[in-house]
Amino acid sequence: MHKWASDLFPLNRSLTGLGTLETLQYLQTLMPGLEINSIDSGSKVFDWTIPKVWNIEKAFIKNMQGEILIDFANSNLHVMGYSNPVDGLFSRDELLEHVHFLREQPTAIPYVTSYYKEDWAFCMSLDQWETLGNGPFHVLIDSHKDDGKLNYGEIFIPGSSKQEILFSTYVCHPSMANNELSGPVVLASLIQELLKKSNLHYSYRAIFVPETIGSLVYLDRHLTHLKDHLIAGWVLTCVGDEGPLSFIPSRLGNTYADKVTLALLRELYPNFKSYSWLDRGSDERQFCAPGVDLPVCSVTKTKYGEYSEYHTSLDDLNFITPRGLAESLDFYKSLVNLLEDNRTPKINTLGEPQLGKRNLYPNTSIKSNQSARQLLNVISFLDGRHNIKEIAELLSLSENEILETITVLQRNNLVS
Amino acid sequence: MHKWASDLFPLNRSLTGLGTLETLQYLQTLMPGLEINSIDSGSKVFDWTIPKVWNIEKAFIKNMQGEILIDFANSNLHVMGYSNPVDGLFSRDELLEHVHFLREQPTAIPYVTSYYKEDWAFCMSLDQWETLGNGPFHVLIDSHKDDGKLNYGEIFIPGSSKQEILFSTYVCHPSMANNELSGPVVLASLIQELLKKSNLHYSYRAIFVPETIGSLVYLDRHLTHLKDHLIAGWVLTCVGDEGPLSFIPSRLGNTYADKVTLALLRELYPNFKSYSWLDRGSDERQFCAPGVDLPVCSVTKTKYGEYSEYHTSLDDLNFITPRGLAESLDFYKSLVNLLEDNRTPKINTLGEPQLGKRNLYPNTSIKSNQSARQLLNVISFLDGRHNIKEIAELLSLSENEILETITVLQRNNLVS
Amino acid sequence: MHKWASDLFPLNRSLTGLGTLETLQYLQTLMPGLEINSIDSGSKVFDWTIPKVWNIEKAFIKNMQGEILIDFANSNLHVMGYSNPVDGLFSRDELLEHVHFLREQPTAIPYVTSYYKEDWAFCMSLDQWETLGNGPFHVLIDSHKDDGKLNYGEIFIPGSSKQEILFSTYVCHPSMANNELSGPVVLASLIQELLKKSNLHYSYRAIFVPETIGSLVYLDRHLTHLKDHLIAGWVLTCVGDEGPLSFIPSRLGNTYADKVTLALLRELYPNFKSYSWLDRGSDERQFCAPGVDLPVCSVTKTKYGEYSEYHTSLDDLNFITPRGLAESLDFYKSLVNLLEDNRTPKINTLGEPQLGKRNLYPNTSIKSNQSARQLLNVISFLDGRHNIKEIAELLSLSENEILETITVLQRNNLVS
Repeated sequence: MHKWASDLFPLNRSLTGLGTLETLQYLQTLMPGLEINSIDSGSKVFDWTIPKVWNIEKAFIKNMQGEILIDFANSNLHVMGYSNPVDGLFSRDELLEHVHFLREQPTAIPYVTSYYKEDWAFCMSLDQWETLGNGPFHVLIDSHKDDGKLNYGEIFIPGSSKQEILFSTYVCHPSMANNELSGPVVLASLIQELLKKSNLHYSYRAIFVPETIGSLVYLDRHLTHLKDHLIAGWVLTCVGDEGPLSFIPSRLGNTYADKVTLALLRELYPNFKSYSWLDRGSDERQFCAPGVDLPVCSVTKTKYGEYSEYHTSLDDLNFITPRGLAESLDFYKSLVNLLEDNRTPKINTLGEPQLGKRNLYPNTSIKSNQSARQLLNVISFLDGRHNIKEIAELLSLSENEILETITVLQRNNLVS
Repeated sequence: MHKWASDLFPLNRSLTGLGTLETLQYLQTLMPGLEINSIDSGSKVFDWTIPKVWNIEKAFIKNMQGEILIDFANSNLHVMGYSNPVDGLFSRDELLEHVHFLREQPTAIPYVTSYYKEDWAFCMSLDQWETLGNGPFHVLIDSHKDDGKLNYGEIFIPGSSKQEILFSTYVCHPSMANNELSGPVVLASLIQELLKKSNLHYSYRAIFVPETIGSLVYLDRHLTHLKDHLIAGWVLTCVGDEGPLSFIPSRLGNTYADKVTLALLRELYPNFKSYSWLDRGSDERQFCAPGVDLPVCSVTKTKYGEYSEYHTSLDDLNFITPRGLAESLDFYKSLVNLLEDNRTPKINTLGEPQLGKRNLYPNTSIKSNQSARQLLNVISFLDGRHNIKEIAELLSLSENEILETITVLQRNNLVS
Repeated sequence: MHKWASDLFPLNRSLTGLGTLETLQYLQTLMPGLEINSIDSGSKVFDWTIPKVWNIEKAFIKNMQGEILIDFANSNLHVMGYSNPVDGLFSRDELLEHVHFLREQPTAIPYVTSYYKEDWAFCMSLDQWETLGNGPFHVLIDSHKDDGKLNYGEIFIPGSSKQEILFSTYVCHPSMANNELSGPVVLASLIQELLKKSNLHYSYRAIFVPETIGSLVYLDRHLTHLKDHLIAGWVLTCVGDEGPLSFIPSRLGNTYADKVTLALLRELYPNFKSYSWLDRGSDERQFCAPGVDLPVCSVTKTKYGEYSEYHTSLDDLNFITPRGLAESLDFYKSLVNLLEDNRTPKINTLGEPQLGKRNLYPNTSIKSNQSARQLLNVISFLDGRHNIKEIAELLSLSENEILETITVLQRNNLVS
């Protein structure tokens, strides 16, 4: 996963543009079934309008000696996202109105965007600004905004049930590691695991979207389907560092996703950090909005906003680690296992099935004969309202005994 | 309000007839939008039949010297409601069969009616009966019952929501003050207050009906509408004296009207008296009947039946006071404020609205930027299921801050 | 009831065939309204297929001297249910593969069936087998399986409500008394009692079906109706001995049938035995299957499987007693009374009825007049959601007072 993140790190991702498309194409090599879908710029989605496609060829600040002082080629964070083009001479004071730096973090380049207001700016560390010289400066941003498409990725893994689990992550930040690439690489690895399984109960859906506008596009197109099929979903972000797992609940904190997440964290990760809905910040904002109300929460390592490197050039490939990524992947794999075990199977006959004709019941009925009792007991609770664990408790059997019995019934087409 | 009660006091109200019509016309001068509606006598409503219109020109008991001993012109309580006409000579014993007085309250004229059985009677104080003389008496009741109309008043004040609040009071008792006029005058004053407000959330409906038969007529015509729109209602009666506020719950005591009433009484009127449904006696009987099941309760000052002046000539203009009426009005005004504050607003976009294009969100996104957080937090709970108070508690903000935020959103057409 | 059981004892009942039809015809003489319905063999019901009709003319085992050693004419338990025909000479060893006996109960003939697998067998006591001699034996079973019909009985007793109570018992076991005939004879006697009552609130339905396949046929034909109308049901079986009453709950143990049963048992039969759903074994298996989910439980005397005579020739007419049968009948009669008392009556006017025109309310209204208060209080809770006992508690009256009041209202056509 860290290798994938390194490959993807230099690409200039944004809401739209080449860097995002290349990122999706790279992810396609990891998940062959990943579809890349798109929507035209200018389209309306709910209250929003899809922005034009932004691309940038080059950008720099030179002094009068022709020395390049700040170069977009060194870090794509140097240019504010969605900056307009500019080419001219600026005094130091004039340039200052178009420069962002962080006084409290003098070595960090901040990550700044202006998606929906026309403007331009350079971002640099305070140290860089202070050693830039007196100017004037030749400033160039060779960017353009054109009609085109916003792209996003989607992969669907059908299980035996039409009920769905959703995983969502985003692909719209340039060169940052934890608050961007950790999400797509952990999710890609999780999907690879799911693709290997042959007997999934639930269907799984993963989407790789530009944050906010991308999830809104997805909801605009698929809300009815999700309302009908989604039983739980998670937003993956900031899952690459070695901090403790952190839980951000859904809006009301009472969905199946919240319950399963908390059950797992409490059992296996008792040191997890628990946040409130008021601490949210990623696409759970859209999935849980009033009227959308999907059962979606989020589990991160150190949460966005809670580490000083967040949204700066310091959130780099050293900030995320193979171990941190693996811990997150383990959590999400355990989550899938719990979901699969926690399903509520349903017998597909009305009344008891005739076990005798399937050689599941002794055909000669005589007094002392009780061997098929357990099978009938399990069947009697396959009502789609009890999960494996509950049935095991009701019958004083182990979960494995229940799962074995269900496997027998599945082979006989008695449980779908 | 006391002045209005004085003006209305002498009118001979009954289920039907001129006194009730004149009362409604007087109320129209206070509430210009009040409509007077009617139903023909003889019409069937549910299990009942609208009675004929009863009017009375004059009535008296004279002795043989031509002296008027009892005169309807002195008090319209002297003649039993819906008395048949009579004109003849009666001995004292014969007359006694047609006289009502109260042995335990020798100075009070009792209020007696016989709406649905043909009969006639005089009502007088025991003192009057004892000094009436030996007779014979010339007894005259010049009354008549004709085909005609039963009238009632209704006013509707639309708010921004189609959900409705109902206030009901009655206009069918002759010269009594607390158990008749206090209700219409307090309700008229409340309606005047509501008419002054420009931004009501709920729609408000007030009805002025003859008790029992009038509310049944109203239900017969509007039950489906009320079932669909009514979220809470109150019956106003006996709201003019200076006793403590008294609560009569709805049939099961579990409606939104009950909850809001109890919340307000407990907070602002901790000395209120609490009655049971079994103590009910006014039109909540019809509004809460099985199958009708509207969310209606009642708040009175001293409850009907709980004061000795009730249903006698002693329930007069001295029994109600400007201060008692004002206390009731204050209660109902606070109730409206609570209802309005307690509404559950709903954002009208799916997904978060785009705040930037409305200048409600900084267009340049940079790390330390958290200023629009509160706005998004409020929006996230405008789901039509949380009221202002609950949202304030969820966000640890004041109700005023929530209301201010909602006002901003309303100006931007984001909350209807 | 014991006499009826004696009459029915010799008949060779099975899932199909003459013995079952004759049993139903005998029950028709006890309950003239009993209908005999049928379904063709070969029909599909849910996951099952109706078997062919099995009849048997004669069957015996003879020695080479022509002596009859085992004779079907002596006990219809001697031939395994649904045995194929056979006619031939068998050595003792060859015969042993087609003989069932019970080593631990040497005097008992076991009851064995093979409905859905082609085979033949004789059943006998261990004592019989040990004294049978060395063989060879002439073995004859003159049986045949033909296309035909599976029959079941049904009787419906309409009450004033369309809500239904179901009683189910079975008619498919040959000569056994407790685990077969006690059910039909107690249910027939209960139905005779119900037929005598003229003012039943609920409608009652009783079915006499071959176990499992018969209840599935009934569900296949009537499940929608039962889902819409059934409020409680009971399976009657093993109700003839003098053991304590035993309760087998519905699948989730939370239906109205469970609640009423437990209330009655706790009050009148505190020594009853309580079993779990996992101890079930009769047609509650089908009535409570996932997706069927009808509110059906079972009350027996000593439960099937809990007495050693079960499913052997020892479950005979001495095992059941007139007193045991009468105790069961008493229980089910009390149950009906409780159900009838526990109904939730509903007033059939909207708004209060006009009591005056029915002489139920004083027509002259005067202050101290409170006599019709109780009537109005009762009416206000006749909402179809409160039962007699609950209304009595709400009004601090006795159940008898409530019932008397309801009787008055029924005479006036105000309660249906």
